[in-house]
Amino acid sequence: MATQDLKIAVVGAGTIGLSFAALHLMKNPNCTVTIYDTRPDLKEYMETKLPEFLVDVDAKECTGRVSAADNLAKAVGDANIVQEQGPENANFKRTTWAQIEQHAPQDALFWSSTSGIPASEQSKDMVDQTRLVVVHPYNPPHIMPLLEVVPSPSTSQAVIDRTLEYWRSLGRVPVLIRKECTGFVANRLAFALFREACSLVAQGVVGVEDLDSVVQASMGPRWTVAGPFKSYHAGGGEGGLGSFMDKIGGTVQECWDASDKDVKAGGIVVGEKWQEDVCRQTDEAYGVVDTAERDLKTKAVLGAVSR
Amino acid sequence: MATQDLKIAVVGAGTIGLSFAALHLMKNPNCTVTIYDTRPDLKEYMETKLPEFLVDVDAKECTGRVSAADNLAKAVGDANIVQEQGPENANFKRTTWAQIEQHAPQDALFWSSTSGIPASEQSKDMVDQTRLVVVHPYNPPHIMPLLEVVPSPSTSQAVIDRTLEYWRSLGRVPVLIRKECTGFVANRLAFALFREACSLVAQGVVGVEDLDSVVQASMGPRWTVAGPFKSYHAGGGEGGLGSFMDKIGGTVQECWDASDKDVKAGGIVVGEKWQEDVCRQTDEAYGVVDTAERDLKTKAVLGAVSR
Repeated sequence: MATQDLKIAVVGAGTIGLSFAALHLMKNPNCTVTIYDTRPDLKEYMETKLPEFLVDVDAKECTGRVSAADNLAKAVGDANIVQEQGPENANFKRTTWAQIEQHAPQDALFWSSTSGIPASEQSKDMVDQTRLVVVHPYNPPHIMPLLEVVPSPSTSQAVIDRTLEYWRSLGRVPVLIRKECTGFVANRLAFALFREACSLVAQGVVGVEDLDSVVQASMGPRWTVAGPFKSYHAGGGEGGLGSFMDKIGGTVQECWDASDKDVKAGGIVVGEKWQEDVCRQTDEAYGVVDTAERDLKTKAVLGAVSR
Repeated sequence: MATQDLKIAVVGAGTIGLSFAALHLMKNPNCTVTIYDTRPDLKEYMETKLPEFLVDVDAKECTGRVSAADNLAKAVGDANIVQEQGPENANFKRTTWAQIEQHAPQDALFWSSTSGIPASEQSKDMVDQTRLVVVHPYNPPHIMPLLEVVPSPSTSQAVIDRTLEYWRSLGRVPVLIRKECTGFVANRLAFALFREACSLVAQGVVGVEDLDSVVQASMGPRWTVAGPFKSYHAGGGEGGLGSFMDKIGGTVQECWDASDKDVKAGGIVVGEKWQEDVCRQTDEAYGVVDTAERDLKTKAVLGAVSR
């Protein structure tokens, strides 16, 4: 798909919507973006908020290519891409996509930013269910390169291909997820580590801030350069991951068994007693996090690895 | 502890031993290092291998401060620090520490690099069990900043304090683990994510290389800048982690439940059928990994975040 002169309709002007709008405007210099939202102050809100995302670019030039729409039909009427980030509510999404389908051009791509409602569920009221695919970002999308592209069993190959091609042409990292599954992949992985983190803190093995230090000084940088499979494959030397498992597999299994036992014993279920202590420790350690500083540092890290 | 003029005895000249020796020599310009190992070609081996670790420094100056020893008693006889990375065998370590204790000065620090044998086990044959503490690196230690400092219940506060102080003075990230536990913290966390990764690949949700891409383009850079607690705390906005759990907790729990179900259904136990396919995919994706390139990139990432 040529990225030039594309008309992109962003449906839903929350933080993710604005971040995506900024991403398109910054990385795709010829596109125009229309933002649709039901909030009555949409125009003023965009004028204030959108420039916050437009860093290291000519913000005025970017905002010159964006417009507000208070009418969904009009917003998507001539769009090449419709990108939705409305409320995480299956009924809302089903209804919205059925409406969008009525008004958007025949060949427009339909992307949902949902973090959990699969395309197969969202497309149920559509006439042509081949058109919708989930494009789940890692927040905030104008900084983080990952996009999980999660088709339903009905999504057409052409839609998948055009979606991957668009994001690659913008220098992002779209990853095709082959089967719809609970939470998709990134959150499943992150939450698995997070559960272990909560469990170790709940047992008093380590504090919240020290646990974060552990991750920031080890897995974070390592996994920025090489994901878990590549890392352990390297750890196995010439014999690769097979050698690693032969040598370290016993320890790996002991750790997994200990995790299961500890998670159970600690009652690591959302909302149980442990959660209060973990949240209190986190509050005490960090107060309100400066996400602008986080984003600046993240950009530096991504810059270092892309060289 | 003053880092100057320290005599450091490195016991065991495998990859971790040489990496630690290089770290001391590079970051502590006045120390001398004695490397003890039973291999007959120790001197030639050191002369060939050690310079590989001495990057971006005056390698000749560094190797001028290192010597080989073929006698444990002599190697530790005037040491301020004895750092052990022998075979991962509890009996070997118990015997070795009892010997070291006989020959090393009274106030020398005793550190084991073990990835799993706790200090309480290793120190059983020592007269003074207060002296030993585990200092578990994240490989390779001359690159990765993390050191898990894991005392036994007998380890003295003074030993803990001097150990933390030394590593901080070298600009590393020593983290005190409050209780001995299976696998310590870093591996427990990494293996929890790794299990989920294996499970998702085993189910055909995503391939090995794509899963690595997911991590490299999301959690890796994010967790280099802010660990999981700080990240989700930021994700909750002004309400912090508590708000995050209120909003996203349902999804988190769904993911945890799905993980448990899938891990069980997929038989994600070390050595079971899934492992072969995961190892094959990894081999096909990466061949033999260039760890020199990995280490260079890792240094760039760490440099970016330390600025």
